[in-house]
Amino acid sequence: MSIHQFNFPTHIQFGPAASRAGIAHLKEKRFTRPLVVTDAGVAPLAFFKTFVDSVHQSGLSPAVYSKISGNPVTHHVTDGVKAFHDHHADCLIAIGGGAALDVAKAIVLMAFHPGDLFDYEDGKADARPIDKEIPYWIALPTTAGTGSEVGRSAVISDEKTHVKKIVFSPRLLAPAVFADPELTLELPAKVTASTGMDALTHCVESFLAKGYHPICDGIALEGLRLAAENLKRAVRQPLDREARAGMLMSSMMGAIAFQKGLGLTHSCAHSLSTVHDLHHGLANGIMIDHALRFNVPAVADRFRRLAQTVGIDDQTGDGFLRWLADLKTDIGIPAKLGAVGVTKASIDRLSELAFADGCHQCNPRACTQADFRAIFTEAI
Amino acid sequence: MSIHQFNFPTHIQFGPAASRAGIAHLKEKRFTRPLVVTDAGVAPLAFFKTFVDSVHQSGLSPAVYSKISGNPVTHHVTDGVKAFHDHHADCLIAIGGGAALDVAKAIVLMAFHPGDLFDYEDGKADARPIDKEIPYWIALPTTAGTGSEVGRSAVISDEKTHVKKIVFSPRLLAPAVFADPELTLELPAKVTASTGMDALTHCVESFLAKGYHPICDGIALEGLRLAAENLKRAVRQPLDREARAGMLMSSMMGAIAFQKGLGLTHSCAHSLSTVHDLHHGLANGIMIDHALRFNVPAVADRFRRLAQTVGIDDQTGDGFLRWLADLKTDIGIPAKLGAVGVTKASIDRLSELAFADGCHQCNPRACTQADFRAIFTEAI
Repeated sequence: MSIHQFNFPTHIQFGPAASRAGIAHLKEKRFTRPLVVTDAGVAPLAFFKTFVDSVHQSGLSPAVYSKISGNPVTHHVTDGVKAFHDHHADCLIAIGGGAALDVAKAIVLMAFHPGDLFDYEDGKADARPIDKEIPYWIALPTTAGTGSEVGRSAVISDEKTHVKKIVFSPRLLAPAVFADPELTLELPAKVTASTGMDALTHCVESFLAKGYHPICDGIALEGLRLAAENLKRAVRQPLDREARAGMLMSSMMGAIAFQKGLGLTHSCAHSLSTVHDLHHGLANGIMIDHALRFNVPAVADRFRRLAQTVGIDDQTGDGFLRWLADLKTDIGIPAKLGAVGVTKASIDRLSELAFADGCHQCNPRACTQADFRAIFTEAI
Repeated sequence: MSIHQFNFPTHIQFGPAASRAGIAHLKEKRFTRPLVVTDAGVAPLAFFKTFVDSVHQSGLSPAVYSKISGNPVTHHVTDGVKAFHDHHADCLIAIGGGAALDVAKAIVLMAFHPGDLFDYEDGKADARPIDKEIPYWIALPTTAGTGSEVGRSAVISDEKTHVKKIVFSPRLLAPAVFADPELTLELPAKVTASTGMDALTHCVESFLAKGYHPICDGIALEGLRLAAENLKRAVRQPLDREARAGMLMSSMMGAIAFQKGLGLTHSCAHSLSTVHDLHHGLANGIMIDHALRFNVPAVADRFRRLAQTVGIDDQTGDGFLRWLADLKTDIGIPAKLGAVGVTKASIDRLSELAFADGCHQCNPRACTQADFRAIFTEAI
């Protein structure tokens, strides 16, 4: 596979060696001092060192900021902004999973915007306008999951309250994405599985979401087909480049599609991350079949199309849910929440937070707190 | 259905009354003097008069340029540029089918660019750069076919040679599209059928086209599904608003998808337009099943997915081609070229021009001039 170029939602170069094309792109734009933002897990990996070496060799003068670990929190951003200015950086390279990419978005936002990050929180009544300069940046995803590289929002947690807050602006979309499946070859099977389930859940929930958006529907279905064809392969054969490419594309398509909206699985996952600090993709992966069962009566025909897309004979909601459960088993995602230590004691808090979460507003069937309670009870 | 907003490939407002939103959009941007560009067929229609009245009533000062008839030629553009400057226009409203939208693109290009239109021809060795100001404009499609409103090129014929030339630039993409299915309600059944077949052919050929573009593949399949569900209805019940909306969306999706590439049906259609001045959509409609048969052996699995998408039991290439032939009969598209007066005498010229056309470069199976000859012979 060679490098392929796509132009929506932004400029995307996709394929092996796309990361080198990213460096050439910054050179061409006459930038000289990139801040390379990554997370603490990626920084010591061989591919990252090779990448930073290539940046040096190209004649650029990079500095690396890698103090990001776990879910992103505000001090990751403030430290990153300081690193940006300390380096006198003129651009930014975000290379990593969803956490690094989200922190990078918040860093470019706060580089020249006054006040605190959450002054810009999406939907806040007196939110400050995002109208100042935003430094040029490029995004290089190293996981195939969140698709944050093609998204326009950053999810950062408040250090004190642990509440996730969203900063959103079309101006936070990366001006250019260099999606290189080679960067995902070193992902451990567990991470491949849980991030992959995140991508798959984005495709499924955006297709099921309320609202009219045939463009997103088409992208979601094709993204699901790619996940169905490639997720198992990528987990079992980490060096299968075609499977890695398929999953990286699927994750971008899921994220493009979910501008239409998501659904109740995501509300469950958000509450699980808050209460049990569960990895977002893993939380989606565990919850997806339990949560989606609630939707089958409302949008049976949509489930038929999901089943058709993944190529199973039983083209019903039940058939699709069974396919999801089998996939989870095959890739090592626990069938139920008990396996990750969630007990019935959490159900009150989990249902309360899931109901308060915004994602299920787009769910195709209205969902009460009692419904969430029933779903969590079944899933434990 | 209310107005829906989409943001790729450009800002799109879709739904009934989107045309009024277009006027409000120009007001909001503080433009005052739009040149309204349409074709001679649309200008006398009731909906167009109502639209221009609304522009006046909003406080804008429009002038109408409607000297476009048949396939667009260079003097449509030069006259339009003159009308733009005579009116001291500060923006442009393109409202019409593919011809009006293409001429509008060429007008905004030539408003402030020096030289002749074809100095900017795509792929020309010494083409002039498109780097000057391009006036703001909005696109309002009134047919559901070409999808020119979301395209980045204009096809204009050379008056002397009748050869179609392409002017292409991302800068020719409309900054905002207002896609209002209400504007298509007055389309006669014949035009609905032939433009609809154009949209459908875009979806099918871009899905079959060589190259890796899963985003376009997904959009193409969903666009095809919409055409399969709505084309017959829109032809038979012109006032069926849901069917009209489905076709308008399908045509935009076809045009978004074909940035991936098209195929040999389009090469046949282009030669038929040149030799017999056949309407582009009608030419695609007549040729599609005859031409695509050539591709079945090369991409049988892709045909299976096309068949699956339109919901037929016989999920093979043959099944899909039969579905196409039946659809043509149902909506009054002639099965063969003889019905529109094309005789065997044209075959030499038709195959020569089709082979010279660029579209089949993306066809999934390489196609010689002899192959085109066989296809035309079978189709007459």
